Amino acid sequence: MKFPVAVVVLAAGASTRMKSAVPKVLHPIAGWPLMRHVLESVTRLKPARLVGVVAPGAAAVSQAFFPHPTVVQQRPLGTGDAAKAALAALKGHRGPILVVYADTPLITTATLRKLIEACRRDKAAVGVLGFKARDPSPYGRLIVRAGVLDRIVESKDADEAERKIDFCNSGVMCLDGSLAATLLGAIRNSNAKGEFYLTDAVAVARGCGHRAIAVEGDEAEFQGVNSRVELAMAERALQRRLRMAAMEAGATLTDPETVWFSADTRLAADVTVEPNVRFGLGVSVASGTEIKAFCDIEGVRIGKHARVGPFARIRPVSDVADNVHIGNFVELKATKMRRGAKANHLAYLGDSDIGDASNIGAGTIAVNYDGYGKHRTVIGAGAFIGSNSSLVAPLRVGKGANVAAGSVITEDVPAKALALGRARQVIKKGRADPLRAKLKTRAAEAKRQNKRQK
Amino acid sequence: MKFPVAVVVLAAGASTRMKSAVPKVLHPIAGWPLMRHVLESVTRLKPARLVGVVAPGAAAVSQAFFPHPTVVQQRPLGTGDAAKAALAALKGHRGPILVVYADTPLITTATLRKLIEACRRDKAAVGVLGFKARDPSPYGRLIVRAGVLDRIVESKDADEAERKIDFCNSGVMCLDGSLAATLLGAIRNSNAKGEFYLTDAVAVARGCGHRAIAVEGDEAEFQGVNSRVELAMAERALQRRLRMAAMEAGATLTDPETVWFSADTRLAADVTVEPNVRFGLGVSVASGTEIKAFCDIEGVRIGKHARVGPFARIRPVSDVADNVHIGNFVELKATKMRRGAKANHLAYLGDSDIGDASNIGAGTIAVNYDGYGKHRTVIGAGAFIGSNSSLVAPLRVGKGANVAAGSVITEDVPAKALALGRARQVIKKGRADPLRAKLKTRAAEAKRQNKRQK
Amino acid sequence: MKFPVAVVVLAAGASTRMKSAVPKVLHPIAGWPLMRHVLESVTRLKPARLVGVVAPGAAAVSQAFFPHPTVVQQRPLGTGDAAKAALAALKGHRGPILVVYADTPLITTATLRKLIEACRRDKAAVGVLGFKARDPSPYGRLIVRAGVLDRIVESKDADEAERKIDFCNSGVMCLDGSLAATLLGAIRNSNAKGEFYLTDAVAVARGCGHRAIAVEGDEAEFQGVNSRVELAMAERALQRRLRMAAMEAGATLTDPETVWFSADTRLAADVTVEPNVRFGLGVSVASGTEIKAFCDIEGVRIGKHARVGPFARIRPVSDVADNVHIGNFVELKATKMRRGAKANHLAYLGDSDIGDASNIGAGTIAVNYDGYGKHRTVIGAGAFIGSNSSLVAPLRVGKGANVAAGSVITEDVPAKALALGRARQVIKKGRADPLRAKLKTRAAEAKRQNKRQK
Repeated sequence: MKFPVAVVVLAAGASTRMKSAVPKVLHPIAGWPLMRHVLESVTRLKPARLVGVVAPGAAAVSQAFFPHPTVVQQRPLGTGDAAKAALAALKGHRGPILVVYADTPLITTATLRKLIEACRRDKAAVGVLGFKARDPSPYGRLIVRAGVLDRIVESKDADEAERKIDFCNSGVMCLDGSLAATLLGAIRNSNAKGEFYLTDAVAVARGCGHRAIAVEGDEAEFQGVNSRVELAMAERALQRRLRMAAMEAGATLTDPETVWFSADTRLAADVTVEPNVRFGLGVSVASGTEIKAFCDIEGVRIGKHARVGPFARIRPVSDVADNVHIGNFVELKATKMRRGAKANHLAYLGDSDIGDASNIGAGTIAVNYDGYGKHRTVIGAGAFIGSNSSLVAPLRVGKGANVAAGSVITEDVPAKALALGRARQVIKKGRADPLRAKLKTRAAEAKRQNKRQK
Repeated sequence: MKFPVAVVVLAAGASTRMKSAVPKVLHPIAGWPLMRHVLESVTRLKPARLVGVVAPGAAAVSQAFFPHPTVVQQRPLGTGDAAKAALAALKGHRGPILVVYADTPLITTATLRKLIEACRRDKAAVGVLGFKARDPSPYGRLIVRAGVLDRIVESKDADEAERKIDFCNSGVMCLDGSLAATLLGAIRNSNAKGEFYLTDAVAVARGCGHRAIAVEGDEAEFQGVNSRVELAMAERALQRRLRMAAMEAGATLTDPETVWFSADTRLAADVTVEPNVRFGLGVSVASGTEIKAFCDIEGVRIGKHARVGPFARIRPVSDVADNVHIGNFVELKATKMRRGAKANHLAYLGDSDIGDASNIGAGTIAVNYDGYGKHRTVIGAGAFIGSNSSLVAPLRVGKGANVAAGSVITEDVPAKALALGRARQVIKKGRADPLRAKLKTRAAEAKRQNKRQK
Repeated sequence: MKFPVAVVVLAAGASTRMKSAVPKVLHPIAGWPLMRHVLESVTRLKPARLVGVVAPGAAAVSQAFFPHPTVVQQRPLGTGDAAKAALAALKGHRGPILVVYADTPLITTATLRKLIEACRRDKAAVGVLGFKARDPSPYGRLIVRAGVLDRIVESKDADEAERKIDFCNSGVMCLDGSLAATLLGAIRNSNAKGEFYLTDAVAVARGCGHRAIAVEGDEAEFQGVNSRVELAMAERALQRRLRMAAMEAGATLTDPETVWFSADTRLAADVTVEPNVRFGLGVSVASGTEIKAFCDIEGVRIGKHARVGPFARIRPVSDVADNVHIGNFVELKATKMRRGAKANHLAYLGDSDIGDASNIGAGTIAVNYDGYGKHRTVIGAGAFIGSNSSLVAPLRVGKGANVAAGSVITEDVPAKALALGRARQVIKKGRADPLRAKLKTRAAEAKRQNKRQK
């Protein structure tokens, strides 16, 4: 019989090098807090239990673990102590216990699964994820003999032969649940810092005659984040992964280095993305759609054969149907653009519902906010909203209605009606020159006054 | 006497790895389909004939060869078979026949010319372009002895000594036109895939006692495109080439990595381009002009000492004269800005002609579209268009006219006239607070209703 | 007693490879002319005197040295000649004389100080900055024996052993002021080009039995700029330095490669900068503020917990207080946004002062320019400016006033008043279809005419 896995996520580490008021593990990459990437990876293992270990007073971190429970590590006495703190919440658990770190967001489910399965297969008391390091010098080395992890040698304690070993300790560990309490309880803090190191579980297990093993993962997955520079590096590595995946799924990214994805962005095949597009959370784009340069897109489902940008901004909670065009300097917020609707130039559409094949003229503003409430603008199918109009919400414009350019529309427009809300033009012949003379004099006078004031 | 060259462009290859409904060779880089880059390179050789080889049913690809003829390779039986298919269209041709690939867009005319000239000089039956590969393992090796191409060894057939050779086969070949039919006819398909490989022309020629040669080109020129990732790599390589050329010609690119050129972009000396500028097709920029950050520019000739951006968008077919200023969040479409005209802030000018030194106020919209036709706006020299105006086309504003801010202009404005189209301001003292109280109540009421509905 | 240092900045070199009408040393990186970076680095040494050497007729370069004096090098006879030209302006100076180059903008104060201090400590007549070159082949090699700089061997004159030396001459030199005239006077021009090389001061000094030394700096600091490509490389190197410094100080840069700083940009800890933000000169941003993607920001102090962008453009001389929101497609110019004020969508605010917690509606335009003068718009605290309004300056809107959406406001609005400047809406039932029929006919007619004209 196979007992299910439990996961301990260590999130109690300090983060002074971040120089931030925000706890380190809540800093985002690809739109998610660091720790959420780890939670997603471990959740796919379908663990029977998951418990977070947090520092005292870290309410925001605890909250980010919800609905999973957390325990507080009262004093920063090392990873061994942190793991031990979690055991209380795992009472009775008999399967493998996986210990991961909330600040290594690039770890994948596949690698974790490999470790757990190897531990099960080899009946190991302890399994450690290792990696072949490009530069092993800062890391503890994994000494493996005949398929068994003999011990972990800290870099400073390594002899010449050991220093040549490039197989290094990632810190990620899998413990046999029925032995975990014993192993962790036997770890001592007789070292310079007086801390309990989880790493020592290997020596403890070996000392008791248990089996320890090491499983290899890719170095890139173990990159930790301790500073803003490392945060940027992790973001870059993750973006690279997301960009490759998008291209392999059949999207064209003209310049992949300038497309920023969120962890949950979904692009269909034959989507084209020009340079400089930022996808915030909650975006999906269907096939044949073109996202032109310089767009900022968040919280929207975009249909097929739509055209967005350049210079478009879409905010949650929007919905852009097939064949819609959103052009330059257009902002959508909580707006539905139905099939074939168009808003091509300098417009703000907020809290709006734009009917099939309607045309929103350049410079149109949905006046959705009055200082107190947000109101809706609903425009029927086939309506034509003249340029530079102000649509004062709450407002309904009926099917096939026309709004004249430059109008301020404050009352509902029936279907097929023509609505105007603008003054008649007046021409004053020969009056430009006298006006200009007056403005010129005024400007000169203002200049003189300005000088006098200085 | 020197017979002219003929060119065969192979474009019949499959492209399943692109995961695209569009044929691979029509995917663009730097604004042109892949195959057009190849066509431009070979056209500069002034070939007497050029023939494309396409797959059955690839009408769009055939069309992209126009005015050059294409032949259909009926079944995908390899490059040798494809080249043979082209021979029918080259009857009577006695000069060199160059065989190139529509999916290697980075090949240069200079390299092709080098191959042809070497073949002529050495009276070679077959000439092959090779390259020193950084990683030769995937490629066939060119075995050259005493200046003669002895044979081509496929990677899997290479012995240890041959595997160390880094001079590799690009596939690009030049055949003696008077021997081509014989050579290609003698190629056999007795291999695992049952295909006819053009590469085997070398062995055939050598077997008949003819001379074969290899000419070296740069590995970068032979990069093929078989996936979206390789498409992005080719785009990047080509952009690098275009960026270097622009800088060498005297343009300043603040951050070259964030300027995207089309293949036909032309920048004069002392043009400055800030970060994040995309040049679509058909752009030329004259000396002393500054393109500021975040611009998207296509189909326009820009004069001297103009200032464009940041955040400007220019669409075809536009014309921007000397000393013009186009500012932020301004869109031009099919618009001529004459010398010294200015549109500095949030404006849409479509189908317009803006006179010398005219000033277009912030927020001005040329209302060029009524749902059925596009109409022109013509503004005379020295006119002043007040901010937030709507210019309803067709419209003519005369020289030196003034349009008052916030006007809707529906009728022509004579020269030197002042035009207004706006309501008079009304002030209602002390009425803001009661209005706000009402709006506040309405908002609270709406909230309650919303809750009730949920 | 320690005599103070004098600095000679050589700025007389030609710059034909730049292909520019602008002198090379005035081309900017990170917002400052190349030579200003050098001036800033040497100024921090607090030199007693600083003199620039310029070419004849280079008035703009001389001006850029102001308030420091310049001397003219009459003919381009080499660096030794240029340094000699400077001596006239340094009469009576007895301390060290540092000779630097106006076209190597990456040199740091720390490295220069190291050279000067070593010269003082070792009582050297001549000190040279050297660097370990990745590829030493183009450079003169520094031959150091027992802590003494024996001589400098030009690359072409180096024997096999010397060619293996990777310690190279940067050209930056420190001369003992009391010996400088003698040393420079003894340099000869008996070489192929007939120029006087400053480098030869080492041989001259050694010949007279004086001590010469070499001090090592980082190769990156000595990168010179002679072409647009090298200009871009220097820009990139400097940007990298600025980006690292910002992150180390506690700012998050989502993608550091796409944030462009000016040399004087200051970001506090916990500032977040999304991709694609350009900081022009004169920007400081306080803690907790978020600069979203695609912003162009110059000449502004931004307070705490503000939110700027995406797609915001801020121009000098602006001031953005704490908790202000500046949204998409909004331009600020010479505008003060007071605490908590908001302008979230498509607006132009120029020469304006926006009161605490005021709300500027979408599409609002401050009409600050009448063709002759720029006028101010002053909006009181807690005012609400309805969307798509035109505020015709000079204008004052009082505290707590409301402006109705779509209004043209030409006269001051008292506090707590409601102002309207818009026409009443008119509805013409059933008139959309007949209008459309008319427009359709007109469009068809126009099409026919167009065709006839062609």
